[in-house]
Amino acid sequence: MTQLRNMNNGKMVNSKEVAAYANVSQATVSRVFSGQTNIKEKTRQRVLEAAEELGYRPNAIARGLTLNRSNLIALVAINVVNPHYNAIINKVADRIQEMGREPLFFVSEEEKNLDEILSQVLQYRVDAIIILSTSISSQMAAECLKIQVPVVVFNKYTVNKSIMTVCSDNVQAGWMAANYLFEKGCDSFAFIGSNTFLGTSKDRLRGFNDCLNEKGYENCIVNMVPYTYEDGRKAMKSILEADKSVNAVFCAGDILALGAMDAVKYEYGLRIPEDIAVIGFDNIDVASWSPYLLTTFEQQIHQMLETTFKYLKDKLNGKQVSEGLILFECKIVERSST
Amino acid sequence: MTQLRNMNNGKMVNSKEVAAYANVSQATVSRVFSGQTNIKEKTRQRVLEAAEELGYRPNAIARGLTLNRSNLIALVAINVVNPHYNAIINKVADRIQEMGREPLFFVSEEEKNLDEILSQVLQYRVDAIIILSTSISSQMAAECLKIQVPVVVFNKYTVNKSIMTVCSDNVQAGWMAANYLFEKGCDSFAFIGSNTFLGTSKDRLRGFNDCLNEKGYENCIVNMVPYTYEDGRKAMKSILEADKSVNAVFCAGDILALGAMDAVKYEYGLRIPEDIAVIGFDNIDVASWSPYLLTTFEQQIHQMLETTFKYLKDKLNGKQVSEGLILFECKIVERSST
Repeated sequence: MTQLRNMNNGKMVNSKEVAAYANVSQATVSRVFSGQTNIKEKTRQRVLEAAEELGYRPNAIARGLTLNRSNLIALVAINVVNPHYNAIINKVADRIQEMGREPLFFVSEEEKNLDEILSQVLQYRVDAIIILSTSISSQMAAECLKIQVPVVVFNKYTVNKSIMTVCSDNVQAGWMAANYLFEKGCDSFAFIGSNTFLGTSKDRLRGFNDCLNEKGYENCIVNMVPYTYEDGRKAMKSILEADKSVNAVFCAGDILALGAMDAVKYEYGLRIPEDIAVIGFDNIDVASWSPYLLTTFEQQIHQMLETTFKYLKDKLNGKQVSEGLILFECKIVERSST
Repeated sequence: MTQLRNMNNGKMVNSKEVAAYANVSQATVSRVFSGQTNIKEKTRQRVLEAAEELGYRPNAIARGLTLNRSNLIALVAINVVNPHYNAIINKVADRIQEMGREPLFFVSEEEKNLDEILSQVLQYRVDAIIILSTSISSQMAAECLKIQVPVVVFNKYTVNKSIMTVCSDNVQAGWMAANYLFEKGCDSFAFIGSNTFLGTSKDRLRGFNDCLNEKGYENCIVNMVPYTYEDGRKAMKSILEADKSVNAVFCAGDILALGAMDAVKYEYGLRIPEDIAVIGFDNIDVASWSPYLLTTFEQQIHQMLETTFKYLKDKLNGKQVSEGLILFECKIVERSST
């Protein structure tokens, strides 16, 4: 045995060698490792013992090719700068592993090359694709559908009935933010959004302005900036320089809101919420810490993941499931910043 | 063409179909897609056009099997609760893609099953393995070495000359922290570490106590807790309840330090650094924000990644490179908490 190992000269033992060692056919080894039951228990034991002794590992990739699936689920993410997304990525990876599959991870700095990335993803014969926070072209979606690779667009509004899309209702949340601030007695509004996730920011802004208009206000001051704490600070300063009367700011992400709060407190010496109320989005950990206690929106990530993985499991099990957009309501987590 | 597509009935076009359509042999198609140059330009064009028209995608996995590599690099991470690790994971994933490979991501809640995970990783015939913040058994390391899959242990101290290990010098950093606090005039010390990364915390504590002992102090008060903001707060409270004289706290991670700072300020009404100096580890974004301005350690992540990927590239190119531990010095980033 040791001899065979050494003779093998640094390469992995293959099923042929196991077959020779156990004195069975290579097909029998394959049958044992693909979990087939029509094998004598004695033979099965002999194969397993030979495999154990030789240090044989079945080749997941070759098995994937034979069974026409790789056991891989691609996770495609663009521009992962939001700590909120990192938490989602970890949760998605956990769920994929709970399904007995492995996440194959694709990241990209830019949205525009997504079709190119997906083209590469498909080369790995993945079982399914989850696209995080960016959308997919109709053409590529159609192509995936045709070759029976289920796709879920997670956390990005997409109005295409042939694409399974699981997303927060950002327009509604924007409306809720304005209504909430209005009820708190605010009467001069601003919005800080991010051009890093422009589509989502615009949806939140649209709902925000819709509500303001319903209440008889004009559209609010808007500042779209990159998604960093420093940019949140700068945006808040430029808003207060433009209009000192602003007493309510809705930020499309917590990092921007935390920067805005610190500008209000440390650069203008104003009080939150007495002088200016601030509301954020995502409910990241820091939002609940003592210096901030930020009122913010929580997305129903757990339910969104449930829906995503139920769809994928059903599709992979060959069930008839329909695609389309499913929207989830966001909830206000009330703290002391409003 | 459309007809052939439709006839293909939802399955991916294979190289045989491309060959038939372009009227060349299947071997020629393979040669074109493996980038070989001994092909007439006219033939190459005809193959590429046929592939384009039929929507053919070369099978990365099958190609990997033929070339005996998968183009995948496994990234194995245990217990990813530190936002600092998320940043590292993103950077590692970027580097893997810069190498023209894809990261295959394995996460696990628990350290003890690492050998089991690695056994699974090897089934994917990965080109290399990067293990984040946890160590590998000598037996498994030897096994990877034997089948010529290079392994790097990143950010976890491992004293095994046959394992390539890239790590911060945590013992030295602990020594530096104590020396720095001593020079600031502190004379009553405490340490908050995390049982979530116990080995690393213990190394930092060892250096910290070494320096205190050199200066004639006894070992300091120690509190090991899970890695959360709330646990940092609680740890700080239990330290101040045990000894009101403490005027310097070294925390083995920024999240703990930020919790400790808020306990000092919001629960005891004490001043930082006048009453208590606090020093953290990792230099996460929040550490630099106005309410905190935390003095902390920065690890040389960029240089550690350079070393990791130089080793992997050299190994994959068949160069002779030696394994072993490489330690990187940490630097103090001075702010107002000390």
